[in-house]
Amino acid sequence: MKNESDMHPAGAGEEPPPPPLDCIFCPQSVAVLGVTPTPNTVPYDIFYNILSSGFRGTVYPVAPGKRSICAVRAYRYVLDIPDPVDQAVIVYPADVVDRALEQCGQKGIRSAIVISAGFREVGPKGVAREERLKEICHKHGIAMIGPNCLGVINTDPAVGLNASFARKMPAVGRIAFLSQSGALCTAVLDYAREKQIGFSKFVSFGNKAGVTEIELFDYLHRDPLTDVILLYLEELRDGRGLIEAARRVTRGENAKPILAIKSGRTPQGADAAASHTGSLAGEDAVCDAVFREAGIIRVGSIEELFNAAILYAYQPMPAGNRLAIVTNAGGPGVMATDAAVRCGLNVPPLAPETKEKMKRALPAAANLKNPVDVIGDARADRYAAALEAVLEDPQIDQTLVILTPQSMTDIEAIARRICQFRQTAKKPLACSFMGAADVGPGIRLLQEAHIPHYILPEWACEAMAVVQKVRQWRDRPTTAVEPLPVDRETARAILTSNGPGYLDEDRALGVLRAYGLPVPEYQLCRSADEATAFADKIGYPVVLRVVSPQIVHKSEVQGIALNLTGAESVREAFGRMQQHLRSAVPEAEIRGMLVRRMVPPGYELILGAKRDPAFGATLMFGLGGIYVELFHDVTFALAPIDRATASRMVRHVTAFQLLRGARGKPPADVGNIEECLVRVGQLVADFDRIVELDVNPLIAGPAAAGNAVADVRIRLTE
Amino acid sequence: MKNESDMHPAGAGEEPPPPPLDCIFCPQSVAVLGVTPTPNTVPYDIFYNILSSGFRGTVYPVAPGKRSICAVRAYRYVLDIPDPVDQAVIVYPADVVDRALEQCGQKGIRSAIVISAGFREVGPKGVAREERLKEICHKHGIAMIGPNCLGVINTDPAVGLNASFARKMPAVGRIAFLSQSGALCTAVLDYAREKQIGFSKFVSFGNKAGVTEIELFDYLHRDPLTDVILLYLEELRDGRGLIEAARRVTRGENAKPILAIKSGRTPQGADAAASHTGSLAGEDAVCDAVFREAGIIRVGSIEELFNAAILYAYQPMPAGNRLAIVTNAGGPGVMATDAAVRCGLNVPPLAPETKEKMKRALPAAANLKNPVDVIGDARADRYAAALEAVLEDPQIDQTLVILTPQSMTDIEAIARRICQFRQTAKKPLACSFMGAADVGPGIRLLQEAHIPHYILPEWACEAMAVVQKVRQWRDRPTTAVEPLPVDRETARAILTSNGPGYLDEDRALGVLRAYGLPVPEYQLCRSADEATAFADKIGYPVVLRVVSPQIVHKSEVQGIALNLTGAESVREAFGRMQQHLRSAVPEAEIRGMLVRRMVPPGYELILGAKRDPAFGATLMFGLGGIYVELFHDVTFALAPIDRATASRMVRHVTAFQLLRGARGKPPADVGNIEECLVRVGQLVADFDRIVELDVNPLIAGPAAAGNAVADVRIRLTE
Repeated sequence: MKNESDMHPAGAGEEPPPPPLDCIFCPQSVAVLGVTPTPNTVPYDIFYNILSSGFRGTVYPVAPGKRSICAVRAYRYVLDIPDPVDQAVIVYPADVVDRALEQCGQKGIRSAIVISAGFREVGPKGVAREERLKEICHKHGIAMIGPNCLGVINTDPAVGLNASFARKMPAVGRIAFLSQSGALCTAVLDYAREKQIGFSKFVSFGNKAGVTEIELFDYLHRDPLTDVILLYLEELRDGRGLIEAARRVTRGENAKPILAIKSGRTPQGADAAASHTGSLAGEDAVCDAVFREAGIIRVGSIEELFNAAILYAYQPMPAGNRLAIVTNAGGPGVMATDAAVRCGLNVPPLAPETKEKMKRALPAAANLKNPVDVIGDARADRYAAALEAVLEDPQIDQTLVILTPQSMTDIEAIARRICQFRQTAKKPLACSFMGAADVGPGIRLLQEAHIPHYILPEWACEAMAVVQKVRQWRDRPTTAVEPLPVDRETARAILTSNGPGYLDEDRALGVLRAYGLPVPEYQLCRSADEATAFADKIGYPVVLRVVSPQIVHKSEVQGIALNLTGAESVREAFGRMQQHLRSAVPEAEIRGMLVRRMVPPGYELILGAKRDPAFGATLMFGLGGIYVELFHDVTFALAPIDRATASRMVRHVTAFQLLRGARGKPPADVGNIEECLVRVGQLVADFDRIVELDVNPLIAGPAAAGNAVADVRIRLTE
Repeated sequence: MKNESDMHPAGAGEEPPPPPLDCIFCPQSVAVLGVTPTPNTVPYDIFYNILSSGFRGTVYPVAPGKRSICAVRAYRYVLDIPDPVDQAVIVYPADVVDRALEQCGQKGIRSAIVISAGFREVGPKGVAREERLKEICHKHGIAMIGPNCLGVINTDPAVGLNASFARKMPAVGRIAFLSQSGALCTAVLDYAREKQIGFSKFVSFGNKAGVTEIELFDYLHRDPLTDVILLYLEELRDGRGLIEAARRVTRGENAKPILAIKSGRTPQGADAAASHTGSLAGEDAVCDAVFREAGIIRVGSIEELFNAAILYAYQPMPAGNRLAIVTNAGGPGVMATDAAVRCGLNVPPLAPETKEKMKRALPAAANLKNPVDVIGDARADRYAAALEAVLEDPQIDQTLVILTPQSMTDIEAIARRICQFRQTAKKPLACSFMGAADVGPGIRLLQEAHIPHYILPEWACEAMAVVQKVRQWRDRPTTAVEPLPVDRETARAILTSNGPGYLDEDRALGVLRAYGLPVPEYQLCRSADEATAFADKIGYPVVLRVVSPQIVHKSEVQGIALNLTGAESVREAFGRMQQHLRSAVPEAEIRGMLVRRMVPPGYELILGAKRDPAFGATLMFGLGGIYVELFHDVTFALAPIDRATASRMVRHVTAFQLLRGARGKPPADVGNIEECLVRVGQLVADFDRIVELDVNPLIAGPAAAGNAVADVRIRLTE
């Protein structure tokens, strides 16, 4: 339970203070608005659930025209309740929810859970209804969950609140589950009960018109009963807020991991999601990268989510990625090794002492390598001997025990021996008793002892790999974005003097130069004389590129001349291009030809930036040309970024192998590429008006020659 | 049961005829050799299993020194049994198995199942023992399963044989399961029993010293009780035989799909497999490609294997890949759509008539798009209405029903309604009742009615995608390899006149030219005069390449001069190279300089061939250079190949987008690339002595310019 100051935060003024979430999870009294006396309907079930789930406070049914519900005195309006009420659970039809909520405000209720559907997810009319709810919440300082949700559960025995229409109260545990889909919650609860997985808090937040996953993160971060946070999300509205909250939660003193499913990965899935909660899924690859940089671990299914969560919640954090496997069957040992290595775990040889210990206890036919094969006829004593040895092995960080039910396997005895180790082992331990029926009683013993169990050894390995990600994220040093010295005023002057649309190339290059990117010397030349003079000054070969606000795709209209090696060819190209353009694009205002040194060949990189509706300014990095198109070998981050993030981005693309100097070629100046990324990030963070920016390509030559911007495109908004 | 001619095949001579597998699966009488009276030991359990599993024949224990086992009269030796015996199950320790088997031969027993371990998997001594067993089998014409296996099960009620130490006899079904790992079998049986999955035959074949998966494929192909074959394989010995058998089984009149797990995918996994059954896993990517071309569908885990098998075994074959989803929960609908699209299924809009039908039966808030959302409070009537409508939709090939257990969901009633559709539906139907405990009874109803059920909708989609692969494989037209006209004699002359090792470049090019590959005109020139004369004849620019048996890597010793544009530069380069090479590699015998036209730039392709221990000659195709190294964008096939296979290979690599003419560039001559692949395949199939061949690169220019071999390496064996 929270302390007094949490319940009644200081700070008074015109605006009511933001409502604390404690009144959602720990109310003293709850009114359910819209209860009906018919079992197996949502309105009845919710009231009944609160009444029968061991709630330590008081619950009041509001049911116009009814004297009582489940033998509990009912009220016509919430305002009729003679006592103070902390929380309202509203199950009225959508069109009267606003009136009910308004009365809650008048009653001084600080938290509401709106179960009712028929809001943003049904179109414009619903959007208007939802906006109305938001206004009422704001006016009265109500913390609202929903609308269009399953409700909220707090298993804390001091509270015992099941304000949901889930069938049963889940077991007490240290996992918090947050879901945008209410129905998924019912499936998860049912699934978890069978696996003896408990929860601390369980929240279906639906349309998140009031309280969002971001505030829930912060609340659960402080919640002493929660160790790990699971999230199912369909719609990213405030991506940046989510990321910032996730960073607060997943790092530092009281760090808790966040594991998430973000659905709508495919365009069709996103469509389905849109019609479901009225959301628009952002670009999936961006989401992937951004989650990675925020410490949110994205998984693909409910199974993966819980597979990882139970390992994290119930076992100590491993010191490294070295896995020992103990099995009574070679085949599954091979499959587990395959899976472990594929997931990035290490299955190293065991220490000689470990083998010695096992040799004394195991038969000659046993395999003492890793995986350790205790052989098909192994009983509990052999498993215990092998497990004791590998758990003490200094080269092993975690252990997976595999059992196949052979006719002489004493399944339950083995499970009991494993449970004994649980009490002393300082290293994580997981099991896979393969099968279902015969191994069932053994599995139940393990689950009761909170030893993570997986039907397939592969799943155990995948879960262990997720825990490795948690560890790596925590071990990563914290860094901060420190702005580099740039000539912001020059950039601002160029940008403010231009209207919406693409910047002319000279101006775009001017902006990049002001921000310290390696722009080769250039000049906008109005005449062939001016062009040859400038070319003579900077040296050959040079390129000529037409500059015209009407010409965005220069090469399509022959607006580029490459590799001009002397004054004569510059003069000739200038004349020829000018003439051609006059007839090809007569409507174009030709501001002149941009002359610059030809950039020597190198790897073509793309540094891009784009404004995303959910995330704001995002950065992209990749190798250009066919790589991007064929292999989607790109990565993303939120701008601005620090140097460490830039370094990770560059190393995340497969093509980094080339930049590092593959195939005997000299390496590129990777440090400068990173710096360029930081600078582009700073630029788009500084100027909201830039909606799109592409340095494409930045040509990365050998380190000695350095990098050079060969083309850029910057698009501005109003 | 098989007919008489199968049991006693015709054909007599010195050699005994190959033993028919019927005597393994359908013996009239079985002797168990090496039985002990101690329960919970392998020797006892096997005998007890046969005795108690409903075997319709007679079982005899052979247990020296025992009067009886389980009250059944025991014999000292198999030769003491007074009746004819069809099958011996041998559980003696490894060192006496050969003597026991010899006696079986003398007794005229035609089939043996050797359970005992301690053979090839334990090293050289075991290898010798195993060879001895093979000899005995050959001498007496015994079909042997094992050694080092769990045994054989035939659920056919007319036989009822559980000659294994599995705990329980599985249910009768139409799935055959073959496994190299015995322990995995016990896990699979336990897993399957819980899911009510039945089997026709169940075989653990262990070290496969006698009967292999190949003969089992052919037997099961003819078995009227089997519809689908599942295989777990650790070791590929006769890869080519496996492929040919698979092609016979998976296509044509009586086609049955083969789904396989091939473990040892990672090098570490392969190591573990090697110590397990003494096998050496072939290169995994080759295996992937070769399985694909043989119609063996490779999956990653037991779960995937059965998820697909139950869908195939219990449901009709869908006409296409269009999926309708009916759900009572939006979130899981989104996740299923994501998964379906990711798997290559199509989730199309429903026909207007379908929507009309549903509109009449469903509430206004229901979503009539695909996925169809019948809303959280749906009961059986709504599910039935939606299901009836989508099953009749002409644009839908299969349906997935998702259920989440909300408080008003009448789970069992819904399951019963779905089961009713099962009887009339001509299209496949699968369900995902999400959760575990509450949905359990509903799931059991579905499983009893053989409606495939998946805990996660994603798994249903993955299983449906596997069935699509089966369908596509069957629909693929059968093609045959027809040799192209080549100058085989010239190639033979070159190859036979050379010893082991790399062929000199002029000879390698000669071989390729004889097989019709696009080799640019070239000549081996001994002097600068000869070189310039030839260059003048063929035109410039040309390249010079040193030819010396001692120089394999020419560029490392400056043995290549590129882009020589005139006679003078040829002369100069010839002299300079000659001089440099004399001092740089004084030991090298310089046969001369190969002169040929410089190949104009284009896409660099690799056409490779290699002899694999399991598969024989394999072909590789990919885009050269950094693509192969960075993105592993290559594909494989077994040589020789037909044109259709070549066409699939070329289209299988991501980089095919380039060859097709991406980014406005002209397309390459893809037809000729395919022909080159066919020709390389023919070459390595014709000449066993070629152990390695790399055309690297074949330069593919625009279609008009054509393709040209720019470098080749051919390595010969003794």
